[in-house]
Amino acid sequence: MYVLMVYKYFGRIYLIPWRTGMVFSKAFYRYTQSFGGMRAVIPFKKGNAKSRLGKLLSEKEREELAMAMLNDVAEALLGSGCFGVIDLLTTSIIEVKGLNTVLTEKGLNEALNEYLGKMSSHSINEPVLIIMADIPLVSIKNIRDIAASATDVVIVPGRMGGTNALFIRNPSSFHVDYYGASFIKHKEIAAGSGLEIEVFDSFNLSTDIDEVADITEILLHGKGHAARYLKKLGFTVVEAENGGRVGLKKI
Amino acid sequence: MYVLMVYKYFGRIYLIPWRTGMVFSKAFYRYTQSFGGMRAVIPFKKGNAKSRLGKLLSEKEREELAMAMLNDVAEALLGSGCFGVIDLLTTSIIEVKGLNTVLTEKGLNEALNEYLGKMSSHSINEPVLIIMADIPLVSIKNIRDIAASATDVVIVPGRMGGTNALFIRNPSSFHVDYYGASFIKHKEIAAGSGLEIEVFDSFNLSTDIDEVADITEILLHGKGHAARYLKKLGFTVVEAENGGRVGLKKI
Repeated sequence: MYVLMVYKYFGRIYLIPWRTGMVFSKAFYRYTQSFGGMRAVIPFKKGNAKSRLGKLLSEKEREELAMAMLNDVAEALLGSGCFGVIDLLTTSIIEVKGLNTVLTEKGLNEALNEYLGKMSSHSINEPVLIIMADIPLVSIKNIRDIAASATDVVIVPGRMGGTNALFIRNPSSFHVDYYGASFIKHKEIAAGSGLEIEVFDSFNLSTDIDEVADITEILLHGKGHAARYLKKLGFTVVEAENGGRVGLKKI
Repeated sequence: MYVLMVYKYFGRIYLIPWRTGMVFSKAFYRYTQSFGGMRAVIPFKKGNAKSRLGKLLSEKEREELAMAMLNDVAEALLGSGCFGVIDLLTTSIIEVKGLNTVLTEKGLNEALNEYLGKMSSHSINEPVLIIMADIPLVSIKNIRDIAASATDVVIVPGRMGGTNALFIRNPSSFHVDYYGASFIKHKEIAAGSGLEIEVFDSFNLSTDIDEVADITEILLHGKGHAARYLKKLGFTVVEAENGGRVGLKKI
């Protein structure tokens, strides 16, 4: 049921179409955001993808898995309906439906900071979500929950101090610093600019795929392209023999 | 702002004190639940705790860390205000403020299934949350979000197919099967009884502490007893030298 709410906020009066059952502050926020727009950017590097999976997968298989994961992330972004623009920031020409290809020759940090800088210099003051291409468990709900945050910066941690997504309300106020303990560095960068942060708690988003053990997580929890690709290759989850939890088997 | 809502549901009329900004269905659910109660149970085994941390910590330190983590979990449960009863199901006498000690000599599965069976035979039809003692990153918000779920069973996955928490609306309809790929087994048990499940997505709750690398996650994200204890022992997070993310150092 929709109700038209009259809402006064900072001296302005808003008429909000509010679906009952939805948190009102979220409905209000989405409504005001719908006047502007948000964008998302996925950095992606094709060559010699995911070398630590070399024990398990050939180079061709690793590249195909990387593309399948990229498609999972792209579909979550597109399906969320939150973004007017979704850019793929890449070192080689790749076609993904619904995404703009933005070519760069730079490394991850330089390419992203140039991207944020260009947004500022073109006076594009839209919030931007930077999201990694190797988190295939991400869901549409995850993306919507991040985009509905009211804080200045949302940091989504990966395991072991990584940063798997960053939602930046005002791109001119922030820069990225990946590699190493980027989770700590991004918290410090935000604090240094007086920005309020939210740490977004998600197993789906924390699960970036680097190691052989991570393949198991895709098979256990994935429902998209990456999970289907691994099953097509014959991978399946088995009970571990060494008293651990689960193992991986190729049939 | 609180509003008193008149709400008709299955032919009965309810007056719900509803804080605007809260999802109404959640407010309604909490209100009806407040007539009954929920309980939580933490299984805990003291002797030779966390042997895989033996490379890093002495036996005494491992036991103290296990107690610190138990205290973090207990505080999140107590702080949530969701539970009328919180039981510590343990093989030895341990005092934790606010928790009832329930002694058992059985293993994990047998002890928990006996516990669920006793609830049924005593006609205690309360929802029950089974939560592991080694997930020190758990927050009060995590617990409240789980308890607010309207599904029959909430399964909270650990990494590699584990189950770190289980919320069971009707204890007589379910049994547990830990070890191995318990996440898959618990999904199958629920499906076999025609129960609706929700998989709860949380990095905090997925992070059970078994390996040396997990200690880093406590230092990166923890704010409670376990994090303070590790810092007291001199542990700190450092940038890794091998191109990985972060490492651990004892100062």
